[in-house]
Amino acid sequence: MINIAVLGYGTIGSGVVEVIDRNNSSIDGKTGDNIRVKHVLDLRDFPGDRVESILVHDFDIILNDPEVKIVVEVMGGVEPAYTFVKKCLLAGKSVCTSNKELVAAHGPELIKIAKDKSINFLFEASVGGAIPIIRPLCSSLTADRILEIKGILNGTTNYILTQMDVEGWDFDRALSKAQELGYAERNPEADIEGYDACRKIAILSSLAFGKSVNYEDIYTEGISKITATDIKYAGKMDCKIKLLASSENIDGKYYAMVAPFLVKSSHPLSGVSGVFNAIFVKGSEIDDVMFYGSGAGKLPTACAVVADVVDAARHLNENIQTIWSEEGLELTGSENATRRFFVRVFGKRSECENRIKEEFGAVDFIEIPEDTDGFGFVTPALAEKSFDAHLANIPNVSGRIRFE
Amino acid sequence: MINIAVLGYGTIGSGVVEVIDRNNSSIDGKTGDNIRVKHVLDLRDFPGDRVESILVHDFDIILNDPEVKIVVEVMGGVEPAYTFVKKCLLAGKSVCTSNKELVAAHGPELIKIAKDKSINFLFEASVGGAIPIIRPLCSSLTADRILEIKGILNGTTNYILTQMDVEGWDFDRALSKAQELGYAERNPEADIEGYDACRKIAILSSLAFGKSVNYEDIYTEGISKITATDIKYAGKMDCKIKLLASSENIDGKYYAMVAPFLVKSSHPLSGVSGVFNAIFVKGSEIDDVMFYGSGAGKLPTACAVVADVVDAARHLNENIQTIWSEEGLELTGSENATRRFFVRVFGKRSECENRIKEEFGAVDFIEIPEDTDGFGFVTPALAEKSFDAHLANIPNVSGRIRFE
Repeated sequence: MINIAVLGYGTIGSGVVEVIDRNNSSIDGKTGDNIRVKHVLDLRDFPGDRVESILVHDFDIILNDPEVKIVVEVMGGVEPAYTFVKKCLLAGKSVCTSNKELVAAHGPELIKIAKDKSINFLFEASVGGAIPIIRPLCSSLTADRILEIKGILNGTTNYILTQMDVEGWDFDRALSKAQELGYAERNPEADIEGYDACRKIAILSSLAFGKSVNYEDIYTEGISKITATDIKYAGKMDCKIKLLASSENIDGKYYAMVAPFLVKSSHPLSGVSGVFNAIFVKGSEIDDVMFYGSGAGKLPTACAVVADVVDAARHLNENIQTIWSEEGLELTGSENATRRFFVRVFGKRSECENRIKEEFGAVDFIEIPEDTDGFGFVTPALAEKSFDAHLANIPNVSGRIRFE
Repeated sequence: MINIAVLGYGTIGSGVVEVIDRNNSSIDGKTGDNIRVKHVLDLRDFPGDRVESILVHDFDIILNDPEVKIVVEVMGGVEPAYTFVKKCLLAGKSVCTSNKELVAAHGPELIKIAKDKSINFLFEASVGGAIPIIRPLCSSLTADRILEIKGILNGTTNYILTQMDVEGWDFDRALSKAQELGYAERNPEADIEGYDACRKIAILSSLAFGKSVNYEDIYTEGISKITATDIKYAGKMDCKIKLLASSENIDGKYYAMVAPFLVKSSHPLSGVSGVFNAIFVKGSEIDDVMFYGSGAGKLPTACAVVADVVDAARHLNENIQTIWSEEGLELTGSENATRRFFVRVFGKRSECENRIKEEFGAVDFIEIPEDTDGFGFVTPALAEKSFDAHLANIPNVSGRIRFE
């Protein structure tokens, strides 16, 4: 029998208990032992609930229980999760978490403690929900040099962008619907401003490149400025607007970015809709590999956590995953990245057409009936730095979106 | 230093040596030790080649070398691969293989020997080339009950079907081109008759359901009867024809099949073209997860083999993957599976329309200008057994394809 404890009985925590209860015999078969939830930590009481008799309010009961070998942390947020997880690891208990804030902020330190103690700190559920991506990066793609990771890593924003496209809604209405359905928090900032995707691409990049990427170094732009009219322009250009998180290794220089992009409809990522996530990985030898699935949700995420519990239980005294060192990875700014840009301008095209051509050369102008106050244009490929300098000379610019 | 030996210096074998040479430092970093190819076994000589000095013709040199801890088997075919692999495992050497014939025929026995010896028998490269699918099934999806696996598992047939669709070629021309490009063997039977896909779905089903699926029990139909006219009909119905390998767990009964299917263009598998593979996995909690990538090719497959070598090197004296028992899994015949069928008939529609309606009820008739000798129709959903019985009463049937 292997005793585990669950820190936090919210959505994911109750899902973890439910998955272990429901798939008990198959999980035990795969573990080769019996997994039992001995304690659940939460500040609240849950009278009548399945966990009522095993609920504790005091973390020290779990920390000091020598029978507890694996701790599941699904509280979210950096504190008190960080303090609790670190204490558990130092006490020789493996930890499985779905908490990307924790992993992005303190991953390398916690990974190192687990390695030193010959136990495990596993976090498959922190990126991509049910999609297996952490383990493939650590164990399946180890023979190749990874050149690029690019993905839709946030289900909430992808749902909002999909609804704006399919239903023609504006941003606020799509966000309200996402909140109503429980896809977005009441304070949606972490999702819509790209912070969540930023932490996730920092985690994936650290694993892919083997050194610690500081999420604060990643240029991050959200989708809150995307309008229904932008979506109409995208349709006219046979594109979808997607919030992409990406990182690249170009000749030993590393780049990372989170921003909305115009993605051609022929690109597989353009077809990823609703709360689904997808992650492309490009290796020097393996070419593109893509992973796709439900990026969030109670039970999919809980299954990813429990799979980590099974792995930790199979390797109680052996560290299985440490290819991310504490050494920092320096990111190069994206000012030299070359791409095309879509720009929207208020006013009459005839009044600024010459000025735009002077600045950008051979642009493609685009007009749609839905934009009665302005027009759009697409620049040739040019460096971000150069684009910004030229754009500053154009009056009445109302927005710009990068092309993938 | 960890010494390995490579059995077979063909396409994959030379790829394995090349990947280890080229990505040496990153592979060693991920292994935590230095991996060295000590012997390469082949009947041929390779004068001037990088492996000339380490080439051996006698398998016993490898078997009796106590320094060799991991053996890579990339000869293909059941014999002598089976004899060699079994001897290596019994001698305490871990084995990594890309050989799906070997795994489908003797997987459970070899898995059990590895488990008994606390070593590893790994075969990520046997299915899906560079796509990580074996390891996710064994380690990432362990918390969920898997209900269905459905995939495009053979790159050669997918290339042929793609060329027939895009270029309008007939089957023979597309096959010749595939042979010219090295995608198809001179004797293409294993690919085009579905035998290769059949072995691969047997392996995936055994892993997903935990018991041994005998590939000889799987109903298997290839693509050699698919004509250019069939592809035109598919286009008219907004479908692609794809060779799908699938298995399902429906209320504790297990079904498996390999056959060409009409796949609606809105289905993600319809967009998988050329030599690419894709695999859908449906769990009871996680919903659909999809894996996509290059399904074959020298370096992608070699990378999958070398990733297994890294994993075996990290776990030299510990068995890490044994969730497939020797116990057989009984498959239920697909005669009760319910689906729609597309049928082609020689002759004039007016002459057999009433007969067809009598047998099948409300069918949809389809005519295309390219089929000057006949017409097609689509049945309502009905059991395969019932479809066969009714079809026997229709004269001049020239073919039928299932709908996904």
